[in-house]
Amino acid sequence: MLTTNRRQFLRAGALGITGVLVARGVSAQAPASAGPADPKLIEDLVAANRILADQGVVDGYGHVSVRHPADPQRYLMSRSIAPELVTAADIMEFDLDSVAVDARGRSVYLERFIHGEIYRVRPDVVAVVHNHSPSVIPFGVTTAPLKPLYHMSAFLWPGVPVFEIRNAGGPATDMLVRNPALGQALAKTLGAGPVALMRGHGAVVVGDNLPEAVFRSFYTEVNARLQAQAMSLGGPVNYLDTEEAKKAQASVAGTIARPWELWKRKALAR
Amino acid sequence: MLTTNRRQFLRAGALGITGVLVARGVSAQAPASAGPADPKLIEDLVAANRILADQGVVDGYGHVSVRHPADPQRYLMSRSIAPELVTAADIMEFDLDSVAVDARGRSVYLERFIHGEIYRVRPDVVAVVHNHSPSVIPFGVTTAPLKPLYHMSAFLWPGVPVFEIRNAGGPATDMLVRNPALGQALAKTLGAGPVALMRGHGAVVVGDNLPEAVFRSFYTEVNARLQAQAMSLGGPVNYLDTEEAKKAQASVAGTIARPWELWKRKALAR
Amino acid sequence: MLTTNRRQFLRAGALGITGVLVARGVSAQAPASAGPADPKLIEDLVAANRILADQGVVDGYGHVSVRHPADPQRYLMSRSIAPELVTAADIMEFDLDSVAVDARGRSVYLERFIHGEIYRVRPDVVAVVHNHSPSVIPFGVTTAPLKPLYHMSAFLWPGVPVFEIRNAGGPATDMLVRNPALGQALAKTLGAGPVALMRGHGAVVVGDNLPEAVFRSFYTEVNARLQAQAMSLGGPVNYLDTEEAKKAQASVAGTIARPWELWKRKALAR
Amino acid sequence: MLTTNRRQFLRAGALGITGVLVARGVSAQAPASAGPADPKLIEDLVAANRILADQGVVDGYGHVSVRHPADPQRYLMSRSIAPELVTAADIMEFDLDSVAVDARGRSVYLERFIHGEIYRVRPDVVAVVHNHSPSVIPFGVTTAPLKPLYHMSAFLWPGVPVFEIRNAGGPATDMLVRNPALGQALAKTLGAGPVALMRGHGAVVVGDNLPEAVFRSFYTEVNARLQAQAMSLGGPVNYLDTEEAKKAQASVAGTIARPWELWKRKALAR
Repeated sequence: MLTTNRRQFLRAGALGITGVLVARGVSAQAPASAGPADPKLIEDLVAANRILADQGVVDGYGHVSVRHPADPQRYLMSRSIAPELVTAADIMEFDLDSVAVDARGRSVYLERFIHGEIYRVRPDVVAVVHNHSPSVIPFGVTTAPLKPLYHMSAFLWPGVPVFEIRNAGGPATDMLVRNPALGQALAKTLGAGPVALMRGHGAVVVGDNLPEAVFRSFYTEVNARLQAQAMSLGGPVNYLDTEEAKKAQASVAGTIARPWELWKRKALAR
Repeated sequence: MLTTNRRQFLRAGALGITGVLVARGVSAQAPASAGPADPKLIEDLVAANRILADQGVVDGYGHVSVRHPADPQRYLMSRSIAPELVTAADIMEFDLDSVAVDARGRSVYLERFIHGEIYRVRPDVVAVVHNHSPSVIPFGVTTAPLKPLYHMSAFLWPGVPVFEIRNAGGPATDMLVRNPALGQALAKTLGAGPVALMRGHGAVVVGDNLPEAVFRSFYTEVNARLQAQAMSLGGPVNYLDTEEAKKAQASVAGTIARPWELWKRKALAR
Repeated sequence: MLTTNRRQFLRAGALGITGVLVARGVSAQAPASAGPADPKLIEDLVAANRILADQGVVDGYGHVSVRHPADPQRYLMSRSIAPELVTAADIMEFDLDSVAVDARGRSVYLERFIHGEIYRVRPDVVAVVHNHSPSVIPFGVTTAPLKPLYHMSAFLWPGVPVFEIRNAGGPATDMLVRNPALGQALAKTLGAGPVALMRGHGAVVVGDNLPEAVFRSFYTEVNARLQAQAMSLGGPVNYLDTEEAKKAQASVAGTIARPWELWKRKALAR
Repeated sequence: MLTTNRRQFLRAGALGITGVLVARGVSAQAPASAGPADPKLIEDLVAANRILADQGVVDGYGHVSVRHPADPQRYLMSRSIAPELVTAADIMEFDLDSVAVDARGRSVYLERFIHGEIYRVRPDVVAVVHNHSPSVIPFGVTTAPLKPLYHMSAFLWPGVPVFEIRNAGGPATDMLVRNPALGQALAKTLGAGPVALMRGHGAVVVGDNLPEAVFRSFYTEVNARLQAQAMSLGGPVNYLDTEEAKKAQASVAGTIARPWELWKRKALAR
């Protein structure tokens, strides 16, 4: 936590007073826009929101973002509404301090720092999902590690760390990643992996693109459900070996367009 | 129980014979109306009924009420039909003895005393839900206490008592809170908290407003499901600390409009 | 089993050769009709089929019947199709040997003897449901007795026996109640109760009328699900006492119209 | 594994270089067509895809095939899309090396060898389903054998072997049955049975016709769910005896048209 606070202090120093105002989402100097994004990408971002709701990964809460293709220092995400209701008109642009480029009075997600701080330290990441995926939450409050036992969930092979906000924010936060320091601590817990659980809260999932982040959110939920069922049958669970998981992940990655097409069609038809 | 019966006796004494008749829902002298309520509030009360059904918190049974804005001695609730079928025309007005202001032959919920007696002793409460929330019922018939492990359910931090109707009504009631004495005993079990379970029956949930009572009903159900799953994974469950739960509750309370808007849109579209 | 076979033998003797042909569903002499039934009753029987499917109590299998109001020796039931597809035109009339009054080449349920034999020995029964109710089946293949822990399921207080077809039909039946002897054995297991489980198969549920038989089918399923969940929480389960269950059953019986109206409206709207 | 590789080597030798190219799905010499199939069969194959999705047996993945009625050396299966989206125009024809007769640039399922290699060694099989049936997967990664406890699932009496791809393909495959050798090894595990689980992956299910393969897929899923629930109730589970299971299977086989008609109507109406 010391480290995190210090990094945050140093960043605040580097950014000066503007950075601090910005962290509160209030700034006289809004960041510059990276320009309009491809409507196809916006459509996919809208679809990602609706798919996550349609497939039961998010309820009235949760959010998904995509890095701006024209500027890695910007990302796109909806204003603060339920994912199932998101339309193209709700998409906003943020810088990596999670300050809106053009807020126009729209309310923003309190926990947008999850996205900005992960994009900052993970240049490989193009899409981020934060969810309260139901089967995953029990794994964040017990000692059973979430591990891949299903080939569609092979991407979990690096392990799934649990973010304990008490370590980052002290014993009595409000459980929300509501500032850059907490976002940075969460990003640190995530490390180079695909998923981190958030104790008593949910998960963050990243991907190389929107379909992958959605796919991983869905199959993290599925793996958690299957793992709990397998554990209840008793005896040892035969998890994927790391090597086979790596190979399965590579092969399955080439097939994500198949469920994505299905999910998108169904979600947008509602 | 003695205490409860005595309080009931004393109240009956204070109210005189009219009070007793009223408690049977039959009265030559119907209570006066507090006047028409805002159509927007009626719409929200209808929505609350339908949302609870749509989200799986109630089935063909259960009811939700709201205190009359013009008179804290009156509350509004549907006539006796399934929550999913409630329309504005079904909303009736009751006094705190749970006597209908204008029954016009409509049947009323047998357990309306749950509402009246809670409003009587909890001036802070504006909305009351009685449900048979499925995941909650097992916690009412075992010794495992329902405790918050999920930040959306942080409002459960005061603890969730279980109402044992055998203590209030003797060993062989019909399990229904069908009179003022039982309503008073239930209100006593609820105390200052947000939720009480009813052994072998369901739960009662209160809120500062309709969306909050609905939100709490939904996330009590979710927490119960998550807690049962976490317990089945083995080992200790990492519940929310009281201090973080209080803070989480305060923060989350500010976001209830988000799922409420979603739930309402979906429920009223059916 | 001896007893059952003997009773069956005696009945066959009493009925003569016609009775035996009848038991095969082939008879030169079809039984006489009790006359047309009230279209309202037919509509309720169609609704009962669709409700049971809509509420997840039956899948592509299962059947529901009602005793003919004009003749206690006749009952009404669909031809052999999935309950969800039943229409008024599919309803047929049977005598208590489960011979169709007017088959006209229509195929009939193999297990119609469940209905006929229960109507024969239970003059109080007006409606019978046979289902493969999913949460109930595990209780038929383990030693855990199904017991009421939920006031809506209070009608289970007499206990829920398990019909072991091996005792009635020998070690290697095809698991189907496909003849009068097996129907009689099942009726004997049911006794004077509301529900009997059928090991590895499903359940039979009876009622004083169609809504009650549907209601009991639904809340037997619910109780089984809740009981399994309660048992998984550990510790003793606080079941309903017999006396309170009897009272709860009586009170709840007066409210069945409420869910029935809801279920019917939903099921017939599909 | 040696055996499998040797058989594969011998086959490759017998087929020559063309066979090897074919196994990669690239061939200058496409196999000859067995001619157009009955549109009724194509409709059933489309229905089978949609039913499996509609009934929750497949998600965005999985595939179902049928042997060509005019030539036992050919089978019909969709191009590589989600089962829920399959239409008649997507159906392709393959030989038993799983080479498309007329690919026209369409992508094919990586795991089509599951189908071709089973048809090759099981002349009795007319339809094959590969799925990721959710309740089944835990039984593939634990030591609990899947066994029939439900009469609708009586066809499982021969036992359900688990295909361990590590034995067939070495410690680090990508978990996919992506070549003839792995398909042959899976077919060997299946043996003469109706179902084999695939560790960490899913299952393969065969039938005498499309409705039977779909029916068995559905009721394998149901049995797995019921068995897990029964095991969680504690005590021994009363499974079907082999003899009664054989008889039940025979009787139930005669009723498959009933759910098939229902499932088809529902799935094609979406």
